[in-house]
Amino acid sequence: MKRLGRYTLLFERRPAILGHAAVCGKKEAAGPLARDFDQTFLDSYLNQESWEKAESMLQTEAANLAIRKAGLQKQEINMVFAGDLLNQCISSTFGLRGMDIPFLGQYGACSTMAQTLIMASIMVECGAANYACAVTSSHFCTAERQFRTPLEYGSQRAPTAQWTATASGSTVLGMSGDIQVRHATVGRITDLGVTDMTNMGAAMAPAAAQTLLDYFNDTATKPEDYDRIYTGDLGAIGTKLLYELLRENGIVLRNHEDCGLILFDREAQDVHAGGSGCGCSAGVLCGHILNRMDRGELKNILFMATGALMSTTSSQQGESIPGIAHLVHVGRG
Amino acid sequence: MKRLGRYTLLFERRPAILGHAAVCGKKEAAGPLARDFDQTFLDSYLNQESWEKAESMLQTEAANLAIRKAGLQKQEINMVFAGDLLNQCISSTFGLRGMDIPFLGQYGACSTMAQTLIMASIMVECGAANYACAVTSSHFCTAERQFRTPLEYGSQRAPTAQWTATASGSTVLGMSGDIQVRHATVGRITDLGVTDMTNMGAAMAPAAAQTLLDYFNDTATKPEDYDRIYTGDLGAIGTKLLYELLRENGIVLRNHEDCGLILFDREAQDVHAGGSGCGCSAGVLCGHILNRMDRGELKNILFMATGALMSTTSSQQGESIPGIAHLVHVGRG
Repeated sequence: MKRLGRYTLLFERRPAILGHAAVCGKKEAAGPLARDFDQTFLDSYLNQESWEKAESMLQTEAANLAIRKAGLQKQEINMVFAGDLLNQCISSTFGLRGMDIPFLGQYGACSTMAQTLIMASIMVECGAANYACAVTSSHFCTAERQFRTPLEYGSQRAPTAQWTATASGSTVLGMSGDIQVRHATVGRITDLGVTDMTNMGAAMAPAAAQTLLDYFNDTATKPEDYDRIYTGDLGAIGTKLLYELLRENGIVLRNHEDCGLILFDREAQDVHAGGSGCGCSAGVLCGHILNRMDRGELKNILFMATGALMSTTSSQQGESIPGIAHLVHVGRG
Repeated sequence: MKRLGRYTLLFERRPAILGHAAVCGKKEAAGPLARDFDQTFLDSYLNQESWEKAESMLQTEAANLAIRKAGLQKQEINMVFAGDLLNQCISSTFGLRGMDIPFLGQYGACSTMAQTLIMASIMVECGAANYACAVTSSHFCTAERQFRTPLEYGSQRAPTAQWTATASGSTVLGMSGDIQVRHATVGRITDLGVTDMTNMGAAMAPAAAQTLLDYFNDTATKPEDYDRIYTGDLGAIGTKLLYELLRENGIVLRNHEDCGLILFDREAQDVHAGGSGCGCSAGVLCGHILNRMDRGELKNILFMATGALMSTTSSQQGESIPGIAHLVHVGRG
């Protein structure tokens, strides 16, 4: 493990993604990436008593699947890093309660997939874990009722709003494998004063630009050096703002896709500015992106998930929305 | 970094606590450990517009103080690990927003001080950070209105209930120092079915017993090998249950103190079963315990903070309360 430049970590031993799995709900399974999910649940309750318990179940399923696909037993996993959007991260704590694996709860809002992947990679790189698991989730119904209004109100959504994905993604890290974590940049909190809770993309774009610039600077690389650059869930508005911010710094992204813009068919599925939620970038990474890497279609990618670090309380108190973005460089070796 | 036994980490390079600071509110400053706090705020609002903003300010103050006491500038800190009890960890995200340090949000409920200390220690041990900061907080008024009832109701408290500390603690880790992190055990989620939200000690005791037994087993040590064993905030009920659970395993703790039982004068200060909250164990560790180690009164201690991983939603849905406990072995070298 070495530090590179001011903010970037270089993984010398190249911890590998040994297994990955993505599960999702009905709407995601009707989208363009349907075939990339390992499992689909058509019932938003997953046969549980509440949406919150359903979301926990998404994590249980994704983590168990990723461990199985890595060819491991859960007793072999030394640490699990997990987090989610719900108050006190209950999707993670209840979803992983039965696994009996040392647990370290993470909070990075929608950046959680990148954060947990970075943490798991560091643990494997430095020998703190032989195998480590990263997992996160979101659920449209739990997020709506916690952050917005009861679903039964049928409130009208702002055009800038994004649709929280019902999905979970998980990766299992260990040594020796083809798909390797090579660099990571841990983000700094950025807040340019956006207060509109229905426009998360705008709140997160400055953090995304900052982390990406930090990474290019630290590694002396440029966008063209990668097959594809994936951002978390900036959606249509956030992506446009990211392009503007990068252009001011002389950078043009030509090989970029935003997980929030590819998970759903925006027009046909009526998701306004795109998908969001921890499960959005997690599902796209652990399904679509890593499947493409497994098939050799992509060999060298950046995955940067973004998060909006507010709560309903902070917004009710008039606070602006701090953003964060964590970046991981994954390569096929 | 080496793994020792099934659950324990051995820090071969012995990352050191270079600086530590604890700040608190009025009630804590009237308790037995008053002189161990670096700073005391008599106004529960800390001159802010809300209790939540006041709690954020506690973290800002504690982190800045710890960095200053370590003889460092904040630009030298490579990563900060922080978390708290509030929904979406807003005390941490808003409290540290202005610091411009790569930020990794942690969620471990009242175990957060041990969790962030472990994470910061691993980063320094493996070279991911030259200097890393760990910080957490709690505030009586924010916790009461989020988890219980509006303070204005003046609700009667159960005899088993604990009093959330208004405090924050922070440590700064780096190489080369006298007070060193030597081992850590990351806890597993444990849930024996306790559902009483006014009896957190009972919910956390099984996790505390499990992590302590794991640690003794992995290191082939026993309680008498340490000057003092500190638990997070089990309070009176949790401590009694921990003793029972350990006794069933042939272990008697003679050199034990619980942070929840030493922060306040239980009778005179009317805190029922004792203190609690992330700030309780954080304040006691970063003030009292580390001060005693600095003075050489203690040379070899275990610090194990415990957390209850539920939310009001999970409890309203009839769920039991999962517990967790993370342990750190700190020695004077």
